[in-house]
Amino acid sequence: MKLIPDNLRAEINLRMDSLRRHMREEGADALLVASNPNLYYTTCRFFRGYVYIPVEGNPLWFVIKPNVFDSENDVVLIRKPEMIATELVRLGYKSPMAVGYEFDDLSYSDVSRLKGIFPEAKVANGSKILRKSRMVKTEWEIDRMKEDGIHQAEVYRRVTKCYQEDMTDLEFQIEIERVLRREGCLGVSRTSGNLMDINMGSVIAGENADTPSPYDFTMGGAGIDPSLPGGANGTTLKPGETVMIDMNGSFNGYQTDMTRVWSIGEVPHIAFKAHECSRNILRALEQMAKPGVAVADLYKKAMEIVEGEELSQYFMGHRQQAAFIGHGVGIELNEQPVVMARSKDILAENMTIALEPKFVIPSVGAVGVENTYRVTPSGLESITIFPEEIQEL
Amino acid sequence: MKLIPDNLRAEINLRMDSLRRHMREEGADALLVASNPNLYYTTCRFFRGYVYIPVEGNPLWFVIKPNVFDSENDVVLIRKPEMIATELVRLGYKSPMAVGYEFDDLSYSDVSRLKGIFPEAKVANGSKILRKSRMVKTEWEIDRMKEDGIHQAEVYRRVTKCYQEDMTDLEFQIEIERVLRREGCLGVSRTSGNLMDINMGSVIAGENADTPSPYDFTMGGAGIDPSLPGGANGTTLKPGETVMIDMNGSFNGYQTDMTRVWSIGEVPHIAFKAHECSRNILRALEQMAKPGVAVADLYKKAMEIVEGEELSQYFMGHRQQAAFIGHGVGIELNEQPVVMARSKDILAENMTIALEPKFVIPSVGAVGVENTYRVTPSGLESITIFPEEIQEL
Repeated sequence: MKLIPDNLRAEINLRMDSLRRHMREEGADALLVASNPNLYYTTCRFFRGYVYIPVEGNPLWFVIKPNVFDSENDVVLIRKPEMIATELVRLGYKSPMAVGYEFDDLSYSDVSRLKGIFPEAKVANGSKILRKSRMVKTEWEIDRMKEDGIHQAEVYRRVTKCYQEDMTDLEFQIEIERVLRREGCLGVSRTSGNLMDINMGSVIAGENADTPSPYDFTMGGAGIDPSLPGGANGTTLKPGETVMIDMNGSFNGYQTDMTRVWSIGEVPHIAFKAHECSRNILRALEQMAKPGVAVADLYKKAMEIVEGEELSQYFMGHRQQAAFIGHGVGIELNEQPVVMARSKDILAENMTIALEPKFVIPSVGAVGVENTYRVTPSGLESITIFPEEIQEL
Repeated sequence: MKLIPDNLRAEINLRMDSLRRHMREEGADALLVASNPNLYYTTCRFFRGYVYIPVEGNPLWFVIKPNVFDSENDVVLIRKPEMIATELVRLGYKSPMAVGYEFDDLSYSDVSRLKGIFPEAKVANGSKILRKSRMVKTEWEIDRMKEDGIHQAEVYRRVTKCYQEDMTDLEFQIEIERVLRREGCLGVSRTSGNLMDINMGSVIAGENADTPSPYDFTMGGAGIDPSLPGGANGTTLKPGETVMIDMNGSFNGYQTDMTRVWSIGEVPHIAFKAHECSRNILRALEQMAKPGVAVADLYKKAMEIVEGEELSQYFMGHRQQAAFIGHGVGIELNEQPVVMARSKDILAENMTIALEPKFVIPSVGAVGVENTYRVTPSGLESITIFPEEIQEL
């Protein structure tokens, strides 16, 4: 079996070209990839092994497991990473001068071991190279994310049917999870780093929405156990509350991130006002966010609108407020750029970002909309197309 | 709100005593904990922050998020890890000489940053200290795992009701997931390292069971997408196949690991023979596995039994065979010890290990039993109590 099917060769080559541009910027003449998300990025597959990318010359794929892949010109079967050095010599590759390792994506032990393969070479932060490259998607990647958006919207269309009176928030979430899985959701939410922990998503309602999160999510919720402090807490859904649904959009190795809000019975006016403010922010940013615009300016624009509406005390949380309103999304849920005041990133065409200006109204719940967008020359194109109004359950 | 509730103080102290013993062995006079699983181990909570454990003196908890915890004698609110050094001076702690950092559990970047807090100190592998300590459970931890086992068995009791003729393996899994979640399963499977990726578990049947895994799981399966190559592949369940169910047992921050097998229609004799061999292995190891016994000897004993039954070609996989038959389990699914030929570990009372001698019979499916056990002076005590025979769907 071929590690990289013929129909993906051109796609992989595009990614290699992009990586090589960023390698040159970071002064690395080779990149050694080993983390699961980055193996997927450089191969369109998950396997146990390594990808070696020289800034000039062909990349090599070193495979340990599974044992189903054929050895080919550029696919080398190995038992352990230390074999990479001798295999490179055998294949006539010259020794690299400066190697990028995934400082942010691999453990200290793993990077230390890999550094031993090229003891003479200088080191660079390969995670930075990969992150920058992954930030701008190819057409193929955007097509995968559009598929995710279509599936996710199809599930959100059926959310109302998952609801029954006197359900708990958790029971509601479980029925949505089932619909998601039957729609093809893979049931994993890949996140980067040590600062997130989530099951298939977040359903928060009423008072629970104002429980601060220990994680780098915008919203909180107590969860049902101290070992997973986030999301639904098992309380019965009541009239007068909003229910915010922010569930898993992973159907194919990529993912979209989408949030919508439902209401039960009569909900105070302030909730609708804040929800409309969120939509106004999205409309403003959709126009404004073009290639060349500073990401930080999106954040500032959102804050201006919120202050103009005198809603600052509820924005991005109430008891605890998140300092960002959006993030890149793709193979992982928390990619670059982060939409925050101190961002140094500049928007580029085909970045994909989730924008989620949200509000927490104490004892009512959370409101606001989250869409995943592609950056185009004329502004943002949403790939999570679904009505944005608060819908009654 | 108190970070550590009064009723957990004694429990935390037990863990600190254990950690200090292993710190002395590794020559560390302080341990700085930051990974999610180890924060949970040292706090019984998830938060964003750090635990500083001196080999003599009281531990300190440094909390960044969430903002709901009170500052107390031993709970210090900080904004960034660099503040730890000055806080230690303020509180009269002496500078550590050798600090353990989580080399295996934190990224290269994170460890490098933390090392900057104590630039003069020597470094040790704190992951090793934590892993050794976590390997032996307290009574409180074992009680949590017993709860998991009871919930997991309750779900397995309802597996038959999840099945309908002409279902796919995936549809079957989705119904089991729903029952699991309604039973209180948290829906996450915490694993250590870069070598695993799984949603709520594995349901494999028929030919699909013989698809090799890229991961460090004993069993494989193709999955439904190249981005998550494991488990159910969406094919319709057919008479003559076995269905192996190895689903998530996480209900409370700990977890149990349990596998049972169901059959559809008439299944070849070889499947029953191999399944009984698995049970015989478990019976033999249950007797043999007492404190002081080498973990490697459990593996050798299992191999002997398999060879005696002439089932080696099917053991632990067929096209690809795993080189271990069990593993520690607790906060994470893949804890120490690993039950393999080259293990150097010695069994101790109150270790908790999952043993999973399994067979893959080509075009029939996988068979075998997995239980989670506690090591006692008289052998293994199962905490996943559920009938072991192959049951017909």
